[in-house]
Amino acid sequence: MTVKADTRLRRLPERGSKDLQLAHGIIDESRICHVGFTLDRQPYVVPMALGRDGDHILLHGSVVSRLMTNLADGLPCCVTITHLDGLVLARSAFNSSMNYRSLMVFGTATLVDDEAEKLRGLDMLVEHLAPGRLADLRPSTRKELNATTLLTLPLEIFSIKSRSGPPGDAKRDLNAPIWAGVIPLALTAGNPVPAPDMPADVTLPGYLKRLS
Amino acid sequence: MTVKADTRLRRLPERGSKDLQLAHGIIDESRICHVGFTLDRQPYVVPMALGRDGDHILLHGSVVSRLMTNLADGLPCCVTITHLDGLVLARSAFNSSMNYRSLMVFGTATLVDDEAEKLRGLDMLVEHLAPGRLADLRPSTRKELNATTLLTLPLEIFSIKSRSGPPGDAKRDLNAPIWAGVIPLALTAGNPVPAPDMPADVTLPGYLKRLS
Repeated sequence: MTVKADTRLRRLPERGSKDLQLAHGIIDESRICHVGFTLDRQPYVVPMALGRDGDHILLHGSVVSRLMTNLADGLPCCVTITHLDGLVLARSAFNSSMNYRSLMVFGTATLVDDEAEKLRGLDMLVEHLAPGRLADLRPSTRKELNATTLLTLPLEIFSIKSRSGPPGDAKRDLNAPIWAGVIPLALTAGNPVPAPDMPADVTLPGYLKRLS
Repeated sequence: MTVKADTRLRRLPERGSKDLQLAHGIIDESRICHVGFTLDRQPYVVPMALGRDGDHILLHGSVVSRLMTNLADGLPCCVTITHLDGLVLARSAFNSSMNYRSLMVFGTATLVDDEAEKLRGLDMLVEHLAPGRLADLRPSTRKELNATTLLTLPLEIFSIKSRSGPPGDAKRDLNAPIWAGVIPLALTAGNPVPAPDMPADVTLPGYLKRLS
């Protein structure tokens, strides 16, 4: 059993490149994150798509989104990404657990307003969510770009928690006639469902076959 | 395409039983939630296991957990549960999206300190996370129960957002020779991994075969 929990909110230079690589891996495997923020003392947690540009998380949304505006204005946030990797079934409820990898990133987001940077960031988002997709899409129009807000959040202050491996039962429980172990869990892709309004001669591209 | 977003924080009586059924369904399919709270003006978002007891979300943790203590003391929280159901691949980046179901519950949690209620709640958590498991486990000891905090959060003020169905492309894009549609995504169970310290004659029970 491996339980890693370093929840001290240390800045990146104190953490080292190994932690940063772990953080990159957790982000790169994920298509959504949960963004936490506080308004009028009320905490909110909102699911959002995400991407990564080096040591920054990319978030996007509508320019009319109040959340996007607040985040761009420097509202402190916490972006958490979690992979549930398995159910850890011990002989007792108490020692039962979950295998997971979780990254919490703290800070304030920054609006990307340089046009070339914004284009590049939005392209990275597309490729993060569906690798290979970008080359197939028509270029975004200026109107579409103007309707979209792009934010970056630096991977500077973050915390990684994870658990992996078999259950950690008490010694006195080990000989009980109870099945114990891990049920692995993973987000998996099913068979692609073509849009009903697609011309009949368009076939599924290779990069989407690999997804499923 | 169906996009449902009712983010007004209405109390349950105004929402009706249909919304409550939707909320139950989102909870019952999920094994983790993301709990948001604010400490010293800093928002936090922490993944946690969850269960359901009627119209209440069940959360549990160690009695020495600072988060559990703060929540039991009435720290306002937001519990969000999200199912990512698919990638919605439109002909443009702008109209690409995700299919999902998300529930946000707002409020303050309550400590379950009645012993019988706590036992019942923890049993419900076990059955929520791995249906059928409870009957196999040895009873929890008093020491284990005393080391565990159980909290309930009422499904009173909540918001449901979801999207389903095919991409909603602009008319001018429909005849482009670009594959469009949905790549379904689901959290699926893999082959059970037996604990290395299990007696050789213990076999996988039926309720776990059905999980995978």
